[in-house]
Amino acid sequence: MIDLKKIEELLEECLPKEDEGYGLLSSAMRYSILGGGKRLRAIMLIESFRLFSDDKELEEYTAYPFACALECIHGYSLVHDDLPAMDNDEYRRGALTTHKRYGHAMGILTGDALLNYSAEIITSAGENLEKNKPDYYMDNMRNFMRAASILYKNAGAFGMIGGQVLDVEGFKDNARPDENMLATMCELKTSRLFQSALCCGAILAGADETAVSLLDDIGRLMGLAFQIRDDILDVTASFAETGKDTGSDEKNNKSTFVSIFGLDAAREKIKELYDEMMMKLLKLPGDKSAFETLFGRLFSI
Amino acid sequence: MIDLKKIEELLEECLPKEDEGYGLLSSAMRYSILGGGKRLRAIMLIESFRLFSDDKELEEYTAYPFACALECIHGYSLVHDDLPAMDNDEYRRGALTTHKRYGHAMGILTGDALLNYSAEIITSAGENLEKNKPDYYMDNMRNFMRAASILYKNAGAFGMIGGQVLDVEGFKDNARPDENMLATMCELKTSRLFQSALCCGAILAGADETAVSLLDDIGRLMGLAFQIRDDILDVTASFAETGKDTGSDEKNNKSTFVSIFGLDAAREKIKELYDEMMMKLLKLPGDKSAFETLFGRLFSI
Repeated sequence: MIDLKKIEELLEECLPKEDEGYGLLSSAMRYSILGGGKRLRAIMLIESFRLFSDDKELEEYTAYPFACALECIHGYSLVHDDLPAMDNDEYRRGALTTHKRYGHAMGILTGDALLNYSAEIITSAGENLEKNKPDYYMDNMRNFMRAASILYKNAGAFGMIGGQVLDVEGFKDNARPDENMLATMCELKTSRLFQSALCCGAILAGADETAVSLLDDIGRLMGLAFQIRDDILDVTASFAETGKDTGSDEKNNKSTFVSIFGLDAAREKIKELYDEMMMKLLKLPGDKSAFETLFGRLFSI
Repeated sequence: MIDLKKIEELLEECLPKEDEGYGLLSSAMRYSILGGGKRLRAIMLIESFRLFSDDKELEEYTAYPFACALECIHGYSLVHDDLPAMDNDEYRRGALTTHKRYGHAMGILTGDALLNYSAEIITSAGENLEKNKPDYYMDNMRNFMRAASILYKNAGAFGMIGGQVLDVEGFKDNARPDENMLATMCELKTSRLFQSALCCGAILAGADETAVSLLDDIGRLMGLAFQIRDDILDVTASFAETGKDTGSDEKNNKSTFVSIFGLDAAREKIKELYDEMMMKLLKLPGDKSAFETLFGRLFSI
């Protein structure tokens, strides 16, 4: 599996340097992204690429920048999600949230800057690809544009942000969501970026439609399992274990998989989803051990 | 000059339909973008394209989506700028600001969705260009990627958002900015999107470096003149004329070109900038009458 250290180096290098730019913005961008995290999305994107290609140069020109862009998108969503008008969280990964550390206005602007930066990374990478790989430029550029389009669709109003809206506004005419609504919200809020990781990696490597569609399914299931895991941890784990305010779902009177099903059924649901993911994974080509390790580690709850 | 009505139609068509998507997000996105405005950036982008190309098909595949994306970027920046933690404005273009109308959390998410949507528009357009113009695909794709890269650089941490940060945080060790600092902030906050309009339009049409560089200069000067004009209107115009809270710079004790120079010198400065813009404009090829009309209308203050 790709080294976590390698991902951190990529992010370190791709973000603006601490002393570059204006005011404390670069500092706040780095603080928001480099403050730890499992880098699941970046790892999955690169591992998905490697299922279909061993072209290290193409990986560097396409999968690496996409992995960094996806982490920036994930990071900005957390920064905005923590804002006072949203979840109003004070801690994340054991440290102050960005707006608590840099101020409210800077929280908004840092999130904006990170989302925008993802597009800067992608479009610069597109320019580089064009300059440096003219030999097999056409096919790769086609894959590149398609992956970029999927990345932003999954992150946008009909993807992740749509899920945030459901979380904030609730479903029309429904005070508390039932299981199906909760699943929809979770697929939008959580699954979509996992789907981007898996699909973009594969598309950039030239995977065929059948494989991309399988990966899209796996990402969807994984997001559900991941959210249920998060809901369980919110109830059972301490601040020291999660690095963020726990019990906040209960505090905010939120419907979660745990509040609807109870702990045992939630754990059972994760197991079901895990089995389904593994079954689909088996149908893919290449060495899947990285994903087997990752899913095993995440979902042996 | 391209019809304002045509631009409105393009935006109408490109935004999510009112009843699509989740909660009130599509409604809030449309409210934020379709609530009027001069569409200067979209008009300038398309007119800049037309200085260098009369290929209507290429215009449709490239300049139109870029114009819509740029309006989404401009629109999101206004929505976030109006938020309570930022300028805390209640009215814009004679109507409630997005967060006043849809709530604080929705103000944040609508801005995010619009910035993300700009990238959805650009990447879909890139896919379309690839599918529909295979005959002269390579050159146009190169121009397309370059224009997209400039669009997001100008909008980002080292462009517009950087300017917002200076506006919010102030300059290090300086309570009130002097003329030079104010000019830097204004070039970032205001000029950069005009520069994107002029440069992206020209690049998409295949303009040469000399022309792009001239247009970049014109966009920079125009942003300065535009901001000074705005500062003057903030002091001299009424709500009925501007559709937004006036006198807000004074209320917020902001340094502006007017507070530093006084009204007469500010008006004189606009005239100087106008003359410089017109001089540079003359060096460009093609029919420049659209820009002459536009600049004349804007800066005859």
